[in-house]
Amino acid sequence: MKYLEECAALVEPEIDRWISKEIRPEVLAKAMRHLIEAGGKRLRPCLALSACEAVGGKREDAIETAAALELFHNFTLIHDDIMDHDEFRRNVKTVHVIWGEPIAIIAGDALFAKVFEAAAANASRLGLSLERTVELFNTLSRASFELCQGQVLDMLFEKRNDVTEEEYMQMISGKTGALTEAAAKAGAILGNASREKVQALAGYGRLIGMAFQMQDDVLGILGKQEKFGKPIGSDIREGKKTLIILRAMKLAPERDRETLLKAFGKSSATSEEISAAIEVLKKVGAVDYVAEQAQKMVAEAKMKLRVLPESRAKEALQAIADFVVEREF
Amino acid sequence: MKYLEECAALVEPEIDRWISKEIRPEVLAKAMRHLIEAGGKRLRPCLALSACEAVGGKREDAIETAAALELFHNFTLIHDDIMDHDEFRRNVKTVHVIWGEPIAIIAGDALFAKVFEAAAANASRLGLSLERTVELFNTLSRASFELCQGQVLDMLFEKRNDVTEEEYMQMISGKTGALTEAAAKAGAILGNASREKVQALAGYGRLIGMAFQMQDDVLGILGKQEKFGKPIGSDIREGKKTLIILRAMKLAPERDRETLLKAFGKSSATSEEISAAIEVLKKVGAVDYVAEQAQKMVAEAKMKLRVLPESRAKEALQAIADFVVEREF
Repeated sequence: MKYLEECAALVEPEIDRWISKEIRPEVLAKAMRHLIEAGGKRLRPCLALSACEAVGGKREDAIETAAALELFHNFTLIHDDIMDHDEFRRNVKTVHVIWGEPIAIIAGDALFAKVFEAAAANASRLGLSLERTVELFNTLSRASFELCQGQVLDMLFEKRNDVTEEEYMQMISGKTGALTEAAAKAGAILGNASREKVQALAGYGRLIGMAFQMQDDVLGILGKQEKFGKPIGSDIREGKKTLIILRAMKLAPERDRETLLKAFGKSSATSEEISAAIEVLKKVGAVDYVAEQAQKMVAEAKMKLRVLPESRAKEALQAIADFVVEREF
Repeated sequence: MKYLEECAALVEPEIDRWISKEIRPEVLAKAMRHLIEAGGKRLRPCLALSACEAVGGKREDAIETAAALELFHNFTLIHDDIMDHDEFRRNVKTVHVIWGEPIAIIAGDALFAKVFEAAAANASRLGLSLERTVELFNTLSRASFELCQGQVLDMLFEKRNDVTEEEYMQMISGKTGALTEAAAKAGAILGNASREKVQALAGYGRLIGMAFQMQDDVLGILGKQEKFGKPIGSDIREGKKTLIILRAMKLAPERDRETLLKAFGKSSATSEEISAAIEVLKKVGAVDYVAEQAQKMVAEAKMKLRVLPESRAKEALQAIADFVVEREF
């Protein structure tokens, strides 16, 4: 969609500005820029810019915060990759694999620091009211705290065998929904939206973030590695309690469950064992179930947009919602 | 000093409020609170509260930001301890030793998130102007970025044998000076100080932070472990390029340098080898040199305070400066 391509093009130089190549020591600049340069869909910046225009602002009004959201996202990716011992993302080596854990921890912290500087610059340029400025900062800082909570839940789940679907939803709400909510909400705040519209966009953002994570779990099973950027089945090998796994463990007959358990959480699982586990997940309907749940959330997210007048920006928000469940990468 | 005891007492419940025991998952609350509960001098909150009153504000005006500064400081400690593989601080086990690295990374991130939420609450309560609010946020976010830069420099120094004293100063300016500058500056901003006074307090804060780090290096050699909270000589064993080491390497005759190199950066060094190295550092005058440099910086810091009218708060800032070089812990 042309509108979203424009958004992504708009934010790119702004992202570049906040993580300038001039940053010293040079290794810090490189580590901060690495994953951002490797790609990414700029989903969160696009959410912020579209939300800003959809409530009556101009896209440019949210540009620093849109960039901040991409820095924010990449901060969480760098730290997550350390914690999950992931070696590849976006088809490149992860930051800690290239530069070691200490530099990766600092590169994440440094991106996080820039988030608030960029948001402050945005508030300052627009001459925002104190109330809106505080709302903007609360949106960003609370999202980051929720992300931490979601990440801890995710880790705790790895050691538990009784995780419920409700708990899974709570976890992805923090781990993925909080930041997409913050993106859409921040755009609305910067567009000076009414309380009702800010709330609607916040709800929309939360839902599509959660749907995004569920679809991510689906693509981790059904996707193609070249497009998806991560090895297919790695969630199984790492023992991630995704909704697909939770559902399959509930539905699978004894023998299929054994097939699953041969690969689940086993770093030494062969690719045959992983393939067999994937077949089980498909066969018992767990993959379809999660894909359907994601579609329902996207439909609900789109309903939230009804408070907005028709516009290209609103269409973009609808398109983002559709993209979340239709994408292959 | 009674004034500073009052400051520390004032900020304690506010710190507690931002890292409530109610935070869930519980392990996150525990990991966030661990080092803060283990002690610490509350130096940065005291700087902020005293600076606020010294420019004509009330101490209470800076209370949320004072708490935020302690969260900020502890965020950096938790991440530093991971990177340095330090096992003890404040006479307790470090966060990553107790809960593992992933939880420690997240606990640090979560404290950092709260910094900006607390500062936003402060700006909101005071009804600060947009300009002052942005200045406050820039102060905090830029300090955190400088900290990252200082930390990277520190790491790079470990692999180099040609670190200059000037480079060392640049490193501690980021690693320690940036946050004490931010503390004093934030207090001044919240006290609605003139530009001149904000600058003076910023300069004062930077200098005492750097002096603090140099004195820390001195105490790491001359101090008593019970008071200091870290094993004496651990900087030597870890191969830290402190100013004491840089100076000693320059001044020590061949044979003393050999004694130093037997312990420096050798995790297997015996306590006798560490003791012998410490004796060299004292004998060649490197410890005295660094202690003197720290005293000079403290004197310079106190000169910056001349723009302030006499007050209990100003006396407190002078006392903090003196404490930095007179302390034993």
